[in-house]
Amino acid sequence: MRNWLPAYGYGSYTRFRRTGLLRASPPIVLAAGFVVLILIGTLLLALPVSGTRPIGLMAAFFMATSAVTVTGLAVIDPAVSLSPFGQIVLISLVQLGGLGFVTFAVIAAITLGKKLSLGQQALALEAFNQTSVSRIRRTAISVLRISLTVEALAALVLALWWWRDYPFLTAVYRATFHAIGAFNNAGFSLFPGSIAQFVGDPVTILVLSTCIILGGIGFSVLSDVGQKKRWAPLLTYTKVILAGTIILNLGGFAAIWALEYRNPDTLGELPVHAQALAAWMQSVTSRTAGYVSIDVSELRDSSTLVTMLLMFIGGGSLSTASGIKVGTFIILVAAVYSYLFHRKEVVLFKRSVSPDTVQKALALLLVTAALVFAGTLILTVLEDAPLVDIAFEVVSAVSTTGMSRGLTPQLSTPSQLLVIVLMFVGRLGPLTLAYSLATQKRSRVRYPETEFQVG
Amino acid sequence: MRNWLPAYGYGSYTRFRRTGLLRASPPIVLAAGFVVLILIGTLLLALPVSGTRPIGLMAAFFMATSAVTVTGLAVIDPAVSLSPFGQIVLISLVQLGGLGFVTFAVIAAITLGKKLSLGQQALALEAFNQTSVSRIRRTAISVLRISLTVEALAALVLALWWWRDYPFLTAVYRATFHAIGAFNNAGFSLFPGSIAQFVGDPVTILVLSTCIILGGIGFSVLSDVGQKKRWAPLLTYTKVILAGTIILNLGGFAAIWALEYRNPDTLGELPVHAQALAAWMQSVTSRTAGYVSIDVSELRDSSTLVTMLLMFIGGGSLSTASGIKVGTFIILVAAVYSYLFHRKEVVLFKRSVSPDTVQKALALLLVTAALVFAGTLILTVLEDAPLVDIAFEVVSAVSTTGMSRGLTPQLSTPSQLLVIVLMFVGRLGPLTLAYSLATQKRSRVRYPETEFQVG
Ligand SMILES: [K+]
Ligand SMILES: [K+]
Repeated sequence: MRNWLPAYGYGSYTRFRRTGLLRASPPIVLAAGFVVLILIGTLLLALPVSGTRPIGLMAAFFMATSAVTVTGLAVIDPAVSLSPFGQIVLISLVQLGGLGFVTFAVIAAITLGKKLSLGQQALALEAFNQTSVSRIRRTAISVLRISLTVEALAALVLALWWWRDYPFLTAVYRATFHAIGAFNNAGFSLFPGSIAQFVGDPVTILVLSTCIILGGIGFSVLSDVGQKKRWAPLLTYTKVILAGTIILNLGGFAAIWALEYRNPDTLGELPVHAQALAAWMQSVTSRTAGYVSIDVSELRDSSTLVTMLLMFIGGGSLSTASGIKVGTFIILVAAVYSYLFHRKEVVLFKRSVSPDTVQKALALLLVTAALVFAGTLILTVLEDAPLVDIAFEVVSAVSTTGMSRGLTPQLSTPSQLLVIVLMFVGRLGPLTLAYSLATQKRSRVRYPETEFQVG
Repeated sequence: MRNWLPAYGYGSYTRFRRTGLLRASPPIVLAAGFVVLILIGTLLLALPVSGTRPIGLMAAFFMATSAVTVTGLAVIDPAVSLSPFGQIVLISLVQLGGLGFVTFAVIAAITLGKKLSLGQQALALEAFNQTSVSRIRRTAISVLRISLTVEALAALVLALWWWRDYPFLTAVYRATFHAIGAFNNAGFSLFPGSIAQFVGDPVTILVLSTCIILGGIGFSVLSDVGQKKRWAPLLTYTKVILAGTIILNLGGFAAIWALEYRNPDTLGELPVHAQALAAWMQSVTSRTAGYVSIDVSELRDSSTLVTMLLMFIGGGSLSTASGIKVGTFIILVAAVYSYLFHRKEVVLFKRSVSPDTVQKALALLLVTAALVFAGTLILTVLEDAPLVDIAFEVVSAVSTTGMSRGLTPQLSTPSQLLVIVLMFVGRLGPLTLAYSLATQKRSRVRYPETEFQVG
C-alpha cells in the first residue's frame, strides 16, 4: 500500500475506492459510482436487443436512473417495451443500486459512528480510511447475505404460488424479478398495471409487502434484531424504528381503507378481504416501494395526501428506502412533543437524543421539503397538468417511491431530466447530507449570541 | 393590592387580566379575550341592523372570527351584505383584534425577554406579573400611537386621492376602513373584487402596501428603527427582519411577475406599470394581508405555490401578521445553511443564534405544517373541490392571510367551523407556542443519551 497522500491519511482509502477520484469524500465516491452504473445501464438498455423495439437513449437514461436509484418511475412499460434481456438489465441495475447503496451507507455509518461517538471530531474521511478492509468485506458480505436470503425465499414462495397460473420458467422468472424489485423497493413490475391483478391475493400481497418492509427498514435494524431476537436488549434506534414502522404502516392502512372504501374506482368494488389487502399494500408501498395494486390516479385527494406524506417520510436509514426516513420523522415529532411539554431533552424509550441529532433531522427535513417545493414549482411551469398530479410525481421521485398518477410517461424531455435529477438527489441526498452533517466542525470564529424572536 | 395567591405570586397579575380566570397563563388570557371579542362581534353582526338583510348567526360567527383574527376570509361580501353599521362593527373588530394581539404580544415579549435573558428559568407567569402596570401602560400607548398614526396618515392620503371619484364622506369612510384593514393586515374591502379596480393605481397600491408592510413587520422592528434611525446600531433581529422582508417582497414580486406576465386572466392584459404594481401588491399581500388586485383563482399553479409559500412564512413577530413568521423562516434557512457548510453555530449578521431559538423555530414550523396538513386533509374529505383550492384556502386561514380562490363562500357549515378553528389557532397558536417554549424547564429526570441515525 502506497501512502502517497500522507497528510490526509488517504493510504488505505485507495484500496476501497474504485473511481480514481483523488481527495474525494465518500459521498462523492458513491455518487460517482451511481453515475457510472447509470451510464452503463443507459447504454445497455439503449441496445436494440434490450427493447421489443429500440427505446431510445433518453428513455434508456430515464429507466437506468430509475432502476439504480430504486425508484420505479417509468417512461416505458418494462413488461411491454423491454425484451427479457432488457428486463434482466433493469432488475440487475436495481439489485446493484440497492445493494451498493446499502453496503456503502452501512460502512459509512459504522466508521462514522465509531469515530464520532468517541467524541473525536476528526475528519470523517480519516475514519473512513482507517476502517480495515476486512471489516468492510465482512459488512458487505453480511448485507449481501441478508439481501439474497430474503430475495431467494420470496422468489421461491412466489414462484410456487404463481406456477398455478404461469408456466414454471415464467413463474420463476417473474417471481425472481418481483422479489428483487420488492426487497430493493423498486416498483418495476412485469405485469400489466403493476400488481393490480393480485389485489386480493393474500400470498402475493403478504410476500411482497414483507419484502418491502424488510428491505426498507434498514440493515442495522435487521442486524440488531437478528442478533438479539428479544425486545429488551435491542438498541433504542432499533426499537424506535420498529415501533415507527408498525405505527406508520397500520396508520396508513387504516386511513386509506377508511378514506377509500366507498370509492368505486379503488377499493369500493372489492370484497372486504381484498379491501384490507389493498389498503395494506397501498400503505406499505407508499413508504417507498412503488408497487401498486390499485390505481393511484383514482385515489381521493385525502388518500393522495396521506400517500404523499407516507412517501415523504419513507423507510428506515441504511436501507433501500429513501425519503426523510422514519427515524428523522420520529425525531422531529419527539422534538416538538418535548418542546410543547416543556422539556429540554428529546426522549425516546427512556433515552435522550442529542440536540445535534435533532438539528440533523431538521436539516434533512428542510432540504427535502425545499427539493420537493422547487421540483414541483419547476414542473408546474414545464408541464400543463393538475397540480396534485405534479406534486405527487415529484414527491414520488424525491422519495424514490416510484408511484405515478400517470404523468411520467407523458413528460417532455426537460421534465424527464428534472425527474432524473430529483430521483438521483432524492436517493443520494439524505445520506450525503447526513454524512456531511456528521463531519461538521465548530468554526474558529465565534460570534456573540443575540436574542431572536420567533413565532 | 391583595396578594391573595402568594404561593404563585399572582398578586399584581390580577390587575392586568380582566377575564376572571384564575391561574390562567397569559396565552390563555389572550385566547379568552379573543373568544369574548368574537362572541360579542358575532352577536353584533347577527343583529338585523348589521346586514342589508340578516346574515344569520353562522355567517356572523365566521365574519367575527375572521375579523378578530385579522384574516379577511369572508362567507359574505361585507361591501354588499353588511350595512354601514355592520361594516363599522367588522372593522372595529379588526382594529381591536389587531391592536389587542400586538399589545399583548409585545408585553409578553418584554416580560419574558427581560426575565429569561438573565438566565432565570422562573415561571414566565411570574415575570409577567412583576412587570409594572406603568410599563404595560406605556407599551400599550406606544403600540396604539404607532398604529393610529400610520392608519391616520394612510386614511388621509387615500381619502384625498379617492375624493376624485367618490363623494367626500364616502371617500373618507372607505379610506379609513381600508387603512385600518391594511395596517392590521385584514383583507376586508368595501369595493367589489377587493381592490381590483386600483390594480394600476400607484397611489392606492403604494399606500396600502406600505400599511401592510408596516403593520406586518412587527412592533419591535418599528420601535427599534424609530429610535435609532441608522442601520449600524440596529438590533440584529431588526436587521434580519428588514433584510428578510425586502428579500421576500422583491423575490415574490419578481417571481409572480415572471410567472404571470403572459397569463391573460391576471397580468397579461395590463400595461407594464400596472403589471409591476399588481405583482408587487400580490407579493406584499401574500405575506398576510389578503387584499388582492388580481383574481387569485386565475393564478397559474406555479404562482399559486409561490403565494402559498409566502403566506405560510407570513410577516414579522409581534405584528398583525401570522404565519410561521419571517424570523422563524430565516432562522431555519440559516440553520440549514450552517449545517451544510459544516458550522455548528447559526450566524446572522455576525451574531450567533442559540440552539434553543433554532429548536423553537423547528417547533413552530412543524406545528404549523401539521395544522395545514390536517386542515387540508379534513377539508378534502368534507368538500368536493380541487385540492389546490382547498390547500390554498387552508394555508390562507392558518396564516390568517385571507386570500381566497373562491372556496370559502361555498363551504358547508362543518367546513366553515373548521376554517374558524384554523384562523383562531393560526392567529394565537404561534404566540402561544413561542410563549410556552420560552418557559420550558429542564426535566428533573435525566436519561442516558443514545446514538440515533437520521438520513
Ligand atoms: K421505489
Ligand atoms: K389577513
